[in-house]
Amino acid sequence: MTVSTQVLLARRPEGEPGDDTYEFVEHELPALGEDQLLLRVVYLSLDPYMRGRMSDAPSYADPVEVGDVMVGGTVCVVEESRNPAWAAGDLVLSYSGWQTHAISDGRGLRRLDPRLAPVSTALGVMGMPGFTAYAGLLEIGRPQPGETVVVAAATGPVGSAVGQIAKIKGARAVGIAGGPEKRQALLDEFGFDVALDHRSPTFAADLEAAVPDGIDVYFENVGGPVSREAFKRMNLYGRVPVCGLVANYNATSPAQGTDHLPPFMSLILTKSLTIRGFIQGEFTQSHGRPFVRDMSSWVTDGSVRYREDVVEGLHAAPAAFRGLLTGRNFGKLLVRVSEDPTS
Amino acid sequence: MTVSTQVLLARRPEGEPGDDTYEFVEHELPALGEDQLLLRVVYLSLDPYMRGRMSDAPSYADPVEVGDVMVGGTVCVVEESRNPAWAAGDLVLSYSGWQTHAISDGRGLRRLDPRLAPVSTALGVMGMPGFTAYAGLLEIGRPQPGETVVVAAATGPVGSAVGQIAKIKGARAVGIAGGPEKRQALLDEFGFDVALDHRSPTFAADLEAAVPDGIDVYFENVGGPVSREAFKRMNLYGRVPVCGLVANYNATSPAQGTDHLPPFMSLILTKSLTIRGFIQGEFTQSHGRPFVRDMSSWVTDGSVRYREDVVEGLHAAPAAFRGLLTGRNFGKLLVRVSEDPTS
Repeated sequence: MTVSTQVLLARRPEGEPGDDTYEFVEHELPALGEDQLLLRVVYLSLDPYMRGRMSDAPSYADPVEVGDVMVGGTVCVVEESRNPAWAAGDLVLSYSGWQTHAISDGRGLRRLDPRLAPVSTALGVMGMPGFTAYAGLLEIGRPQPGETVVVAAATGPVGSAVGQIAKIKGARAVGIAGGPEKRQALLDEFGFDVALDHRSPTFAADLEAAVPDGIDVYFENVGGPVSREAFKRMNLYGRVPVCGLVANYNATSPAQGTDHLPPFMSLILTKSLTIRGFIQGEFTQSHGRPFVRDMSSWVTDGSVRYREDVVEGLHAAPAAFRGLLTGRNFGKLLVRVSEDPTS
Repeated sequence: MTVSTQVLLARRPEGEPGDDTYEFVEHELPALGEDQLLLRVVYLSLDPYMRGRMSDAPSYADPVEVGDVMVGGTVCVVEESRNPAWAAGDLVLSYSGWQTHAISDGRGLRRLDPRLAPVSTALGVMGMPGFTAYAGLLEIGRPQPGETVVVAAATGPVGSAVGQIAKIKGARAVGIAGGPEKRQALLDEFGFDVALDHRSPTFAADLEAAVPDGIDVYFENVGGPVSREAFKRMNLYGRVPVCGLVANYNATSPAQGTDHLPPFMSLILTKSLTIRGFIQGEFTQSHGRPFVRDMSSWVTDGSVRYREDVVEGLHAAPAAFRGLLTGRNFGKLLVRVSEDPTS
């Protein structure tokens, strides 16, 4: 009898998800039926979109129901299989959520080969975040050689890939992150041309100096005041792929003060901007194969580097997730739920 | 010796352009030089974009300098010509601005044939406003059969063309205008499927009821609260061509109160919207010829109708322009500066 520790959504959070958002339960898994597999979760990915799933506001995906296991991408090892396609010891990418073990019927699993890349990268640079950067930048942002690409949360798995792909395509990459340590990593690890600290009191002037020719592509994954500074500097026919707005996710009530919508619309008009929201799944059909081909080769040859921030144990997930929404993580945030058999 | 009455920009207006924005002067024109023509202005077009030219805020076009003649599209008759390409009596489309007479060297003039269409339409349905509707709707909005297209300022020259072209393309057209008389014209003259009065206290509910399947294309030419109601109802992958924001043009300071930008960005993200600003000139090369061909045939066969609101005499221009920015006109606003020889 296998017991799975599960993290349920106990209540919908108001603002920042506190510990009372979650309930940890021990759930006895039944014996495997025909064609079923027992998965042990090795890595759980924590991603900003999960904040949206905790709310019942209308969005692109259905919310998690109160009382259900929190959703999430996972890397698992097959512990036991009654499915002829899978054997004990196989490593798989699955969407098993915040729990230690899960039963699967094999549908939706993707086999991972640890000889090609560390399996954890299937949740980061080779997975959803990397693909978000790839598809959004190339299909919507369309950076041209010599153009300027700006991205915030730039040490994160999406932002760091955006900057490095922009460089590969011949553009200038300007990265924005919080704090001097992350700022330095943008230059040393990820090869951005210019790195800015949005917490600096001179941030607006720093950005102005960093984009003497304006901004052609602003890859929007944060929202808030950082974005507004970037918008002001957009060039004619600039493009803004919008894949995330983490600065807004914990907002509980409409912000009061200046209404920033009218000047934003004026910029869209006077600069002939394109603002385009997207969820990466839209591009799976069109860009999935080129992504795997390109990103594998870039990671292998070192032209795309990645950084992981691994916390230990499922019980660390709630605090780590809060940190993700305020930028305390440094790189792709993963929970090591159990021992990685490949490392 | 010809004297031209000219309207100069006397000072940059704060908010609504008052009478002191302008200075009327009598300007003696010199004798014609070689290759020059004397034009008598017959119709002056008044358009919302002119408010932007009065300001020195950064925009897509240079501002009018204080002391210069206010710019504007015009239909003129050639009174005298020393240019072999033009003869007295010819009718031309020019950009002669707010004045009664002008000297031209012939560059940038377009010959008008009054047998094909009333010459005033070169400033409306067959001119810049019609082309704005055509290019923006077809290139950015891309309405599909059965989809819902919403446009405000819908009795204006852009809005009325947007609705009628949407119908031609098989979409449902929902028009928004101010007051019961305009609302009725949307149904009776322009064939919108549904017409709404944005001044009605039940406007939000009326819009909700008018778009049971949501909005696929919102053609943005007004901004303000009407737009915000439309944005809320956008469908997945909806498109928003942005060609004007007349509700904002007289704003003197940033609006205070609720910040509407964060929820707008959230809609862009969760609905994968495309918001695209444009100025019609961008599409002249790609869509100019198809426009002339299509629009001529639609106007001739009655599938696109148009309405003109003509005020008499250049002295009426300042008040008429104020009315344009608040929706007091009813149809394409023109100043008849002098007698139309074709009517």
